[in-house]
Order: sequence, then C-alpha cells, then structure tokens
Amino acid sequence: MKIYEMRIAPNPRRVRIFLAEKGISNIEFIQLDLQKGENLTPEFKRKNPFGKVPVLELDDGTCINETVAICRYFEEIHPENPLLGSNAVEKAQIEMWQRWVEFYFLMPTGMCFQHTSGYFKDRMVPIREWGDECRIHVSKFMHFLNKHLETNTYLIGNKFSIADITALCTLDFNKVNQISISPEQIHLKRWYEDVSSRPSAKA
Amino acid sequence: MKIYEMRIAPNPRRVRIFLAEKGISNIEFIQLDLQKGENLTPEFKRKNPFGKVPVLELDDGTCINETVAICRYFEEIHPENPLLGSNAVEKAQIEMWQRWVEFYFLMPTGMCFQHTSGYFKDRMVPIREWGDECRIHVSKFMHFLNKHLETNTYLIGNKFSIADITALCTLDFNKVNQISISPEQIHLKRWYEDVSSRPSAKA
Repeated sequence: MKIYEMRIAPNPRRVRIFLAEKGISNIEFIQLDLQKGENLTPEFKRKNPFGKVPVLELDDGTCINETVAICRYFEEIHPENPLLGSNAVEKAQIEMWQRWVEFYFLMPTGMCFQHTSGYFKDRMVPIREWGDECRIHVSKFMHFLNKHLETNTYLIGNKFSIADITALCTLDFNKVNQISISPEQIHLKRWYEDVSSRPSAKA
Repeated sequence: MKIYEMRIAPNPRRVRIFLAEKGISNIEFIQLDLQKGENLTPEFKRKNPFGKVPVLELDDGTCINETVAICRYFEEIHPENPLLGSNAVEKAQIEMWQRWVEFYFLMPTGMCFQHTSGYFKDRMVPIREWGDECRIHVSKFMHFLNKHLETNTYLIGNKFSIADITALCTLDFNKVNQISISPEQIHLKRWYEDVSSRPSAKA
C-alpha cells in the first residue's frame, strides 16, 4: 500500500497520526510538491480527479481519496484501538464532532489560508472578504472548543478519537493564518498540550 | 426518538430518504421554521449549539447532530440494507464519494444560496463574489458527475448508497439557485430519473 501526500499539509498529517495511534507502519509514503503542481499531472489525476492529497493506493491499484475515507479503511481492516467509536452512540458522537471540527474549524482555516495568503493564486482567484470572514469563524470555534474542554478531557468525553486528531492538525496549521490559542483559553491549552505530547503527534 | 427538522431543507430530506430506504418509521418529526429563527432559541441551542437541523434526540435526551452522524447511528442499530457499505473497500469508497458530493456539490450549493439569495441576510453578511464562485463549482461538479455516470449505474458502481441520497437532495435543492441538469447531461439525467423514482425520494 502507498500513500501520496505532502508532508507539511494538514490532511496527510491527520492520516499519519491516525496510523501511528493504530500502530500501522507498513505503508510507503510518496511525497508530492503541491506548489509545483505535482498533484495536477494527468497521471496523478487518474488517482484523484480533484488533485488532492492524501491518496491511498491499494496493491490492486484501487485509489481511496479523502482523509476520513482512508482512515475508515484502516479502522475496518485494523479494528483494534478504535478511533471512530465502538458502539452506535459513540460512533455517531464521533462522526458529529469530527464534522463540527471539519466544517467550523478545518474548512474555514483552509479557506482563510487560500483566500488571504496568495499561496495558490496561480490557480484560483482569492476573495479577500471571504478569507476574512473565515478567520472570524476559526476564532469563534476555538472559543467554543475552549468552553467544551472545560468539562471534557477530549472532544468526546474521556476518549481520544479521530476528532481530536483533526482538531490538533487544524490548530497547528493555523500558524499560516497567524492564529493561536489565546492566554485566557486555558482549557484548550491544557487539551492541546495533552494531545501534542502523544508520540503520534510527531508522525 | 424525535427528529427536529424543517421539511423543505435538504439535510433533513437526506435523513428521511435514508430512513425510508432502511424501512425505519417509528420516529416523531418536529418541524422548526428556520426563517423565523425557531432554531436559534436557547432551548434549541442546548440540543445543537450551532442551531442546525436535523437533530436526532434519543429517548434518554442524548442529541445527535449532523446528517451523516444521524444516518450512521441508524445504520448501526439497523444494519440491514446497508447504505454506508458492507466491507472495508466499499465503506471507504462510499465515504470518499459522500465527501466529494458534500464538499464539491452540497456545500457550494448551500453557500451559493446563502450568499446570493439574501434568505438569511438578517443573520449573516452575504458576499456576492463568493456566492458566484460557488455557483461555478456546482456546475463543474455536475459535469464531473455526468461523465462518471456514463459508466456507473449509481455513484459507487451498481450499489445505491448514501452518496446517491446526498447527490439527489443537492440536485433538487439547486432549484433555489436556478441550476438544473443541462440537456446534454444525459447520464446525469438517466441517474436522476432512476433515483427520483424510488419510493424513498418522496419521504
């Protein structure tokens, strides 16, 4: 099995942390340079028509795209140490939090970066006003998260899950937007130090 | 179990079709008027802090938010007639397609509506330029979908899944954006007529 990725991007990191938490290590990683457009070649677009990373390529050539689809594949073939939940309510609550983190934190983070940094300006027209709006959403979600973590060890009670991985990668990626934890967000800081100190965070 | 929803909104419809395909009918539905702000009361925000519908409330008061989290809960307690896949590769491919439809079709559809119609202008500042950009993404995805459906009965080969439900609800919702299938998109039209004729489409 091979994973096509770009090491510094947040979505590939989500997959690497997921695999590290699972103890899965027999994967070959192939690096692409997104700024050089190595993800936009006809060959790569046969693997992912949208030219995104990461992509998991199975030994028979089947390509699985989308971070969470890749994680779900590994959760299925390696169910030990579940990160997507172990009963109906827990699976639903993890799915809910995962989506909250993606829709209200990761996506505005990515769009703030794309629409205010000019990083991909050769292939998109940045809309500054939309990027600024996304920045406000990012800050609001961090406030919400801080409040939630006052009474919860992890995003879903006392169980580390894929939602924590997504939130950690999003928080770290916000360096590109110059957004970081405020001094008064003590619960978010406590959680951040906890999840960052897990060996998987370095994967 | 209760579901809080607004009948004409696309996400509640995704859940109703999912339940109809599963043959689950013992749910009480409670209607909220989003334009009147019935989803923004302190009471409802205790069920969903983001004020979104649908919300599934279990008999013990636990609230499950997010359409796909609600569907996952029902898939878990009622695994017959799986709509989220039945083995590792199928589950991953359905997750991949579901996310493609959500990220590249449903979300731009919703944002085009929000940023160009003025429907929620009492509670957000519409950015016309961003709404117009989203409209382009919607059209591009419909072109991609038409091409894919030339050689596939449903989104994932010959199996109807949650990804078809999401695509159907998104396509129908695009009436609000005055976007519909072009005459030359014959494969998309064939698929649309097929999925629309299932009894669940009327749920």
